[in-house]
Amino acid sequence: MSGGSGTRLWPLSRTAHPKQLHALVSDMTMIQETVSRVAETRKDFRFAPPIVILNERQHALARLQLDALGVRPSHFVVEPVARNTAAVAAVAATLVAREHGDDAIVLLLPADHHIRKPDAFHDAIEAALSLANSDHIITFGIEPSTPETGYGYIERGEPVATGYRVKRFTEKPVREVAERFVAAGDFYWNAGIFMFGSGAVLAEMDALCPDISVISREALANGMVDGDLITLCADAFSRCPANSFDYAVMEKTERAAVIPADIGWSDVGAWNALWEIADDKTPEGNVSRGDVHFVDTQNSYVMAAGRRVGVVGLDNVVIVVTDDAVLVSDGARTQDVKVLVNALVDEGRGDLL
Amino acid sequence: MSGGSGTRLWPLSRTAHPKQLHALVSDMTMIQETVSRVAETRKDFRFAPPIVILNERQHALARLQLDALGVRPSHFVVEPVARNTAAVAAVAATLVAREHGDDAIVLLLPADHHIRKPDAFHDAIEAALSLANSDHIITFGIEPSTPETGYGYIERGEPVATGYRVKRFTEKPVREVAERFVAAGDFYWNAGIFMFGSGAVLAEMDALCPDISVISREALANGMVDGDLITLCADAFSRCPANSFDYAVMEKTERAAVIPADIGWSDVGAWNALWEIADDKTPEGNVSRGDVHFVDTQNSYVMAAGRRVGVVGLDNVVIVVTDDAVLVSDGARTQDVKVLVNALVDEGRGDLL
Repeated sequence: MSGGSGTRLWPLSRTAHPKQLHALVSDMTMIQETVSRVAETRKDFRFAPPIVILNERQHALARLQLDALGVRPSHFVVEPVARNTAAVAAVAATLVAREHGDDAIVLLLPADHHIRKPDAFHDAIEAALSLANSDHIITFGIEPSTPETGYGYIERGEPVATGYRVKRFTEKPVREVAERFVAAGDFYWNAGIFMFGSGAVLAEMDALCPDISVISREALANGMVDGDLITLCADAFSRCPANSFDYAVMEKTERAAVIPADIGWSDVGAWNALWEIADDKTPEGNVSRGDVHFVDTQNSYVMAAGRRVGVVGLDNVVIVVTDDAVLVSDGARTQDVKVLVNALVDEGRGDLL
Repeated sequence: MSGGSGTRLWPLSRTAHPKQLHALVSDMTMIQETVSRVAETRKDFRFAPPIVILNERQHALARLQLDALGVRPSHFVVEPVARNTAAVAAVAATLVAREHGDDAIVLLLPADHHIRKPDAFHDAIEAALSLANSDHIITFGIEPSTPETGYGYIERGEPVATGYRVKRFTEKPVREVAERFVAAGDFYWNAGIFMFGSGAVLAEMDALCPDISVISREALANGMVDGDLITLCADAFSRCPANSFDYAVMEKTERAAVIPADIGWSDVGAWNALWEIADDKTPEGNVSRGDVHFVDTQNSYVMAAGRRVGVVGLDNVVIVVTDDAVLVSDGARTQDVKVLVNALVDEGRGDLL
């Protein structure tokens, strides 16, 4: 799933060059990291070539980046309009069922997440396989380290095979609730990574949200095929409800299961996450990308493209410099970068979006 | 006096394009403001065309800016090396004495100060005239509003004519001393603006610091003249001691007098001063020059050349963006911008200086 726009990583992330197509954590871009992670073959399973679902403005660059890596996806699927993750799941499952059969397992991965421990991630996938083979729909659960209010929480139920049934989902709880969840110990963050049998998930969607699965199939069937490129039918896909896989499927299905995944996960949702996951902090807690000079500054993150940046006497700030824009934010407020982006939308500044 | 480099206003102020040649407070550059201020004729005095003393790298641009204003200085004097303000005073007084006589009065003005009330400044000059005509050497004293530790303080003595004798100078006192000075009420900040008879000051310098006045005269006499351009003799001027007019003359002479000057003065010494003197603060106390969007930010100053700047959740910061560099500083720490500049010197980054 590579269709996101990474708004909160403005000014680096832009519509035509979003977060997943930038090298943010390593010298690979996020989508390169993501496909690299599923290129390895393990004793108990193997990954088929990936299917990449994205929008048209990102297609050329994503293709270049995967080419550079020597990865050849079986398909690039272009969404003519964004219809959220439930439709993406239906499209992916339909394609997989067609080419690999109803029993083939789909791993639905956001292209813009960081996973520090790929081996542990493979272990989690392995642990999920038996559940997926018994028609469960699996989400990967991250043990919460802080009462984060921007994530969805999963409360686990009784054990099933190598995981747990899902008792309840709670999307973006208020702080007090999040604190209670973290203290309780049987809650996980919902990483937004899913696994399911292609036939099983389509059957479940036909029961729970048939408008989405039926229209998605139609958009694929009437899509335009050009080699490995499939452009979904715009007429059909526009009619598809935009809903997340969490809301449309996971919160309703009896088949939901969670696999605890201690995989060093971050959704790199905002700039402060890049400070958090950086493993090259100075003794003062600073992280710099580019030509940066700190004076009496702590716990700060600076990314500077082609410019000298001098920082004096500050604590916990994020500074991002691109050719045409500069962000300076309190490190605790980087979620509000979206307010800056909304202002640009209101001002009609497409050149900066 | 236009030879300074305005180091603490990096990254805007550069060796070849220093502070005084930038429009910082109005749409005129500082040197344009400075010469404009002494272009008006008052009933009791008139200003002769200015003499501009500067270094070679700044000469062409300064000339262009004064041309644009329709001001024609009698001379541009180029210093082959910087020798501080005592030598500048001697050179200026020598030129003025030669062309206007020993009784002509010199007003020695830094080209990079802001004076919010030019009428009051003219009143102060008028008040100083009788003292200057009686061979006093006058400094203009600013009533201190805060216990600033970066300025020199003047303690006034008994009244003389329209001003006071100077009892004592104290250069850059520690905070406790500065607080005592401010509380005492008979102290002024030394604005670094001086006035004296050209013959009188040279006689006094010949007595107090003859090495400076004699060598300065020699550098001028042996200088290269090309129309209105005088380049001081490098061989001679290099031998001149580098000393400030305060140290070399004002602190030693019996003829020192101070004229209180409530003129809305600022030496615009560092970026925080530009925030202070800005008269277009938003209700949140923000000042912006360029394309800036603030979210939940107070008391901050942003200057952005050709770039969008977004600021989120900060208080009292200074942000300056140029083509090749970015400064982000705590508003209370802008004096330490010189540390950034020193680092660039150490790294041999002449391109950024």
